[in-house]
Amino acid sequence: MRMSSLFLRTLREDPADAELPGHKLLVRAGYVRRAAPGVYSWLPLGLRVLRKVEGIVREEMDAMGGQELSFPALLPKEPYEATNRWTEYGPNLFRLQDRKGADMLLGPTHEEMFTLAVKDLYTSYKDLPVSLYQIQTKYRDEARPRAGVLRGREFVMKDSYSFDVDEAGLSKSYDAHRDAYVKIFDRLGFEYVVVHADSGAMGGSASEEFLAVNDGGEDTFVRDGEGYAANVEAVTVPQAEPVEVTVGPAHVEDTPDTPTIDTLVAALNRDHPRTDGRAWTAADTLKNVIVMLVHPADEEHPEGRREPLAIGVPGDREVDPKRLEAKVAPAAVEAFEERDFAAHPHLAKGYIGPGALGEERGIRYLLDPSIAVGSAWVTGADEHGKHVIDLVHGRDFTADGTIQAAAIREGDLGPNGRPLTLARGIEMGHIFQLGQKYAEALGLKVLDENGKLVTVHMGSYGIGVTRAVGVIAEDNHDERGLVWPRSVAPFDVHVVAAGKSDEIFVKAAELSEELERHGLQVVYDDRAGRVSPGVKFKDAELIGVPTILVVGKGLADGVVEIKDRRTGDRREVPVDEAVSALLAEVRRREP
Amino acid sequence: MRMSSLFLRTLREDPADAELPGHKLLVRAGYVRRAAPGVYSWLPLGLRVLRKVEGIVREEMDAMGGQELSFPALLPKEPYEATNRWTEYGPNLFRLQDRKGADMLLGPTHEEMFTLAVKDLYTSYKDLPVSLYQIQTKYRDEARPRAGVLRGREFVMKDSYSFDVDEAGLSKSYDAHRDAYVKIFDRLGFEYVVVHADSGAMGGSASEEFLAVNDGGEDTFVRDGEGYAANVEAVTVPQAEPVEVTVGPAHVEDTPDTPTIDTLVAALNRDHPRTDGRAWTAADTLKNVIVMLVHPADEEHPEGRREPLAIGVPGDREVDPKRLEAKVAPAAVEAFEERDFAAHPHLAKGYIGPGALGEERGIRYLLDPSIAVGSAWVTGADEHGKHVIDLVHGRDFTADGTIQAAAIREGDLGPNGRPLTLARGIEMGHIFQLGQKYAEALGLKVLDENGKLVTVHMGSYGIGVTRAVGVIAEDNHDERGLVWPRSVAPFDVHVVAAGKSDEIFVKAAELSEELERHGLQVVYDDRAGRVSPGVKFKDAELIGVPTILVVGKGLADGVVEIKDRRTGDRREVPVDEAVSALLAEVRRREP
Repeated sequence: MRMSSLFLRTLREDPADAELPGHKLLVRAGYVRRAAPGVYSWLPLGLRVLRKVEGIVREEMDAMGGQELSFPALLPKEPYEATNRWTEYGPNLFRLQDRKGADMLLGPTHEEMFTLAVKDLYTSYKDLPVSLYQIQTKYRDEARPRAGVLRGREFVMKDSYSFDVDEAGLSKSYDAHRDAYVKIFDRLGFEYVVVHADSGAMGGSASEEFLAVNDGGEDTFVRDGEGYAANVEAVTVPQAEPVEVTVGPAHVEDTPDTPTIDTLVAALNRDHPRTDGRAWTAADTLKNVIVMLVHPADEEHPEGRREPLAIGVPGDREVDPKRLEAKVAPAAVEAFEERDFAAHPHLAKGYIGPGALGEERGIRYLLDPSIAVGSAWVTGADEHGKHVIDLVHGRDFTADGTIQAAAIREGDLGPNGRPLTLARGIEMGHIFQLGQKYAEALGLKVLDENGKLVTVHMGSYGIGVTRAVGVIAEDNHDERGLVWPRSVAPFDVHVVAAGKSDEIFVKAAELSEELERHGLQVVYDDRAGRVSPGVKFKDAELIGVPTILVVGKGLADGVVEIKDRRTGDRREVPVDEAVSALLAEVRRREP
Repeated sequence: MRMSSLFLRTLREDPADAELPGHKLLVRAGYVRRAAPGVYSWLPLGLRVLRKVEGIVREEMDAMGGQELSFPALLPKEPYEATNRWTEYGPNLFRLQDRKGADMLLGPTHEEMFTLAVKDLYTSYKDLPVSLYQIQTKYRDEARPRAGVLRGREFVMKDSYSFDVDEAGLSKSYDAHRDAYVKIFDRLGFEYVVVHADSGAMGGSASEEFLAVNDGGEDTFVRDGEGYAANVEAVTVPQAEPVEVTVGPAHVEDTPDTPTIDTLVAALNRDHPRTDGRAWTAADTLKNVIVMLVHPADEEHPEGRREPLAIGVPGDREVDPKRLEAKVAPAAVEAFEERDFAAHPHLAKGYIGPGALGEERGIRYLLDPSIAVGSAWVTGADEHGKHVIDLVHGRDFTADGTIQAAAIREGDLGPNGRPLTLARGIEMGHIFQLGQKYAEALGLKVLDENGKLVTVHMGSYGIGVTRAVGVIAEDNHDERGLVWPRSVAPFDVHVVAAGKSDEIFVKAAELSEELERHGLQVVYDDRAGRVSPGVKFKDAELIGVPTILVVGKGLADGVVEIKDRRTGDRREVPVDEAVSALLAEVRRREP
C-alpha cells in the first residue's frame, strides 16, 4: 500500500470530543472517525486492525470447536418478548417499526435467536453439546457513549452460546470457552485480568469477566495478590464476627441540625464527648440509606412494583450504586423521593434509625456485613434533631438480613481474609453459565437418554471486538503515537523513503515490493514533493506499525535503517540484507 | 468438519414460504433460515458460501485499487436530509429515534457517508482519484421481500464510490469498476449479462446493470443478439419515420358503450367497417392513458406537487409501469382517480382523445415513439360514446413530446434497428456515473491545479453479496439439490463413510484429515448408527459440494469412489491414489 494513495489524513490536533489517549490517537492517526454519538466509521487502517482482531477471535473459537453462523441485527420483537427483554432492556434497546407497523429491534445480544435456532434444528441429547458463535454488529442505545470505540452504540461483538444436556456439560463448555478466551486475550496484546463477576440481569450462575487493566476504565475490580480477583459488583466481603458488648444501655440525645454524618460527628464531639477521650468518627455512626426498588413490570404492576429498601452501612462508607444494582437485579434502583417520604411519615429524614425500619414496618432493612453483632453505634432516633448512642446490633436492634452493597475500599478484607487492592478495568469479555433461563422461556428441550424431554443448559460468552481495538490502543501508545502489537498491527513494516533522490525512492519501492512478495504487509510512504522526511517520521510514529524501515541518506553507503517503534531501537543494516533482517524481525515476534 | 457435529439439519420438505427452487434448496439444505420477513440467518454452511463470495468481491476490488473501509449501518438523519433522500426514500427507509429523540436511519446505501468522508480527509486534486468500498449490511424496508436472500430487508452489499476531479477521470474510474465487475461475476458461477440501465432516482448519467439471466427474475431486459442489451427501463426504441398520409379527413362517429379497446374494435368492425375490407385491430387505435405524477416534496408543496400526464400509445400496447417510473423519476406515479377526473371535467373517461390533452389544456401529453407523423388513428372524440376515425398525427393533432414508456415486445426493433428478444433477469450489480449530485449537495470540493475549488465527480457501484448467494443457488442446482461452483462451495470435498465396518470409518477419517492437511476444506459424513448410506448420499447431493468421495464396500478391494456432483460422473480409484486424485480434481477447476 502506498501512502500517497492510502485513504488517510493524519491530524496534528487532538479531537475535541476525545478524553482517553488511545481514542485521541485512533482519530488523529486516521483509524476511525465519528459518524454520530457512539457510532464510528472504520477507515482503511482501522478496518485492517479490526479484521486482525476478528481473525484472532475466529481462530480460537474455531479451534475450541465453535461453529460460526450469523444472525440478523434487525430482529422481530416476539422472541425478546418471550424472555421479557423487550421490556427489561429499557431505553438501551433500539426499537423501530417496519412499514407494516410491526415492532422490531436492533439486537443488543442474541440469546433468543441462538436458542430458537437450536430449537429449530436439534431434538436429541445426541445433538449436544454444541457451541455456536457469530462476530456481528450489535446495537445498544447507551446513555453515555464513551471513549470512541470503547463504548459505542453500534459495535462488533463476538457472542457465543453453548448448549448442553446437563449442568456438568455446561460446566465443561464453560471451561472450554474460558480456555479459548485466555488464548485470545493473550494474543491481543493488552494487560488483562479474569475476575469473578456478577451475573447481573442476565440470570444464571457462574460468571467471570475478562477485564483490561486500565486506569481509564469504568469498572472497578479488586484483587488480593494471591489469585483472587473480582469485579466490585461480585466481591463478597466476610461477615464480621460477633463482638463482646462493651457499652451501657442505649441513650437518645439531642443532636439538633445534624442531618449529615459530618454535622453529626462534629456535634457528638462537641456536645457528647466519649468518656474514654477517643473522638467520635464517622465509622462510629450507622447510616441508613433508603432507596426505591422498581421490580420488572408484570400484569399486576404494569409500571413495575415499587418497594422501599433501607441499607445500613457505617457512616464512613458509601453505598456503591453498581454493587447495589447487581444485588437487587432485575429490579432497578431509584432515589427515595420527597413524595416517598410523604407516604412514610414515620421516617424522620436525616435521623432515620433501625427503629423505623424492618419488614414489619413496610421497609425491608439490610445491613452491611461489617456491622458485627455486639457492635455499638450512633444512629438516628427517628425524631428530628435526635440520635441514639450506644445502640447495639443484636441487643437493641436487628435487621432483615445483610447486603453486599457498600463501596469496597483499598485494604478491606476479601473473602479469603486477605486485604484487597482496587484497580480500574474495562470489560472485554464475559463468560457465564446462563443455565436454563432462556431455554425455559423459549421452550428449548431435547430428549435425553431415557426419551424424556429435558430443558437445555446454556452458557453465554461475549467479547467486545471493536472495543478490543480501542483497548489495545489505550494500552499500546506513547507520547508520539500508537504502538501496535504485531498480532494486530495494520501492517508489518512501514517503509519510509527519506530523501529527495530518485535512488532512494526506487530502492524503497523495490524493498517494499520484495517484502510483499515474501507475504509481509507493507505500507510504503512514497510521498514526494513537499512532504519532508520529518513529516514522514512523525506520521510513521503516529500510525504505529511495529517496524519502520528508513531508506535515506545511508543508501549512498549501502545501508538502510531498521527501527523498532516500541523500543525506539534503531540499527543500520546493509541494504542487501534488509529483507532477510526484516523477515526475521517480523517472524521472531509472531506468536 | 464432521457431519456428526456440524450445526445442520436437512429437510425433506420444501419450506412453505419459498417459490424459487434455489431458495427452497438453501433452506432445505440448511444454509439459511428466515428470522423475520426478508430477514435471514446464515447457518454455518451458508456463512461459508457467503464469505467466499465476499472474498471474491474483495480480491477484485483490491486488485483494481479499491480501498476497503466500513461505515456504520445506524446513521444520523442530517446527511440524508441534505441530499433529500431522507424524504425521497419513502417507506423503503427504516427510520428510528434514539433515546434522546434524535432521528436516525438504517443505511440503504452510503453515498452520503462516503462523500462526507472524502470531504473530511481530502482537499486537493492531488488526493484524487480514489475508489473506496465496503462490504456491509444494509437495510431497506421492501414492500415485498422475496425469494429468501434474493430480496431481503437486511442484506449484505458491496458498495463502492469513485471520486475524480473531472468527467474524464470519472469515466476511467467507471471503466475500471466495470472491468472488476466482469472479473467478479465471471468467478461467481452464474450466467449474467451487462445491460444499459436507467440511472433512476439516483441521478447521474452512464449506467449499466449486471443482471443474472434467470426466468424467476423480476427485471426484464432486451437484447438484439448483436451485442446490445438493456434493461427495459433503459431501452430506447427508435422514433418511427414519418409516413405518407393515405386517409381522408378525420370524422367523428358514434361508438356507444366502447370505453375499452376491445369493445371499440368490435364496434368499429360491426358499425364502421373499413372500405378496403381489412378488419380494424387494436393496433389501429390510439389509447390515451392518464396518470398522476407526484413530484418530490419541496417547501411550496410539502406533500409533493401533483401533475397529470397523458401518454398516447397504440391500443395493442400497454404502458410499462417500470419504464414510465424510470422516465419520470424522481416523481412517483399514482393512478388518475375519480376525484382527478372530477377536477378535469373536460375529460370524457373512456373516450379521451388528443383534443382534450396538451400543455395548453393543463395536461402534458406525450406520445409513444412508434406513432409516426402521418399515421392515422381511431381515438377518443372527447365525448361519451364517440370516437374519431382517421385522425392523423401531425395533420390533425400533435403532442408535447414523446415518452419511452410503452411495454417492449419480443420483436420490437431496438436502437440499432435489430429486433429485440426479451428475457428475465435479477439485478446483481449496478455501476453508474453519479456525476456531481451528491458532491454538490454535501459540498465536496477540492482545489484543482489552478487553485480553484471544483466539485468532485463521483461514481457509484454496487453488488448484492447476499443476493449473489441466492442467485448462484438458483442457477446451480438439479432435482436432487444444490450444485455449487467450486469457487464458492462451502467445502471442496464431501467425504461419505458408506458402510458399517470400522475400517470404512477409520479410512474415511484418515483420508479427510489428509485432505485437510493439504489445505482442502472437507466435510466428512461420519454419522454412524441409524444413518444409512442412502441418507448420507441424499444429504451429500442436497448440500451440493462439487466433489464427493465415497469410502464404502469397495474398500475391501482397495478402491474408493470419486463422484462429480454436477455431472454425476463417478470413477473408482485405488485408495492410495485417492488424495492425489482429489487434489488434482480440486485444483484443475480452480480459476
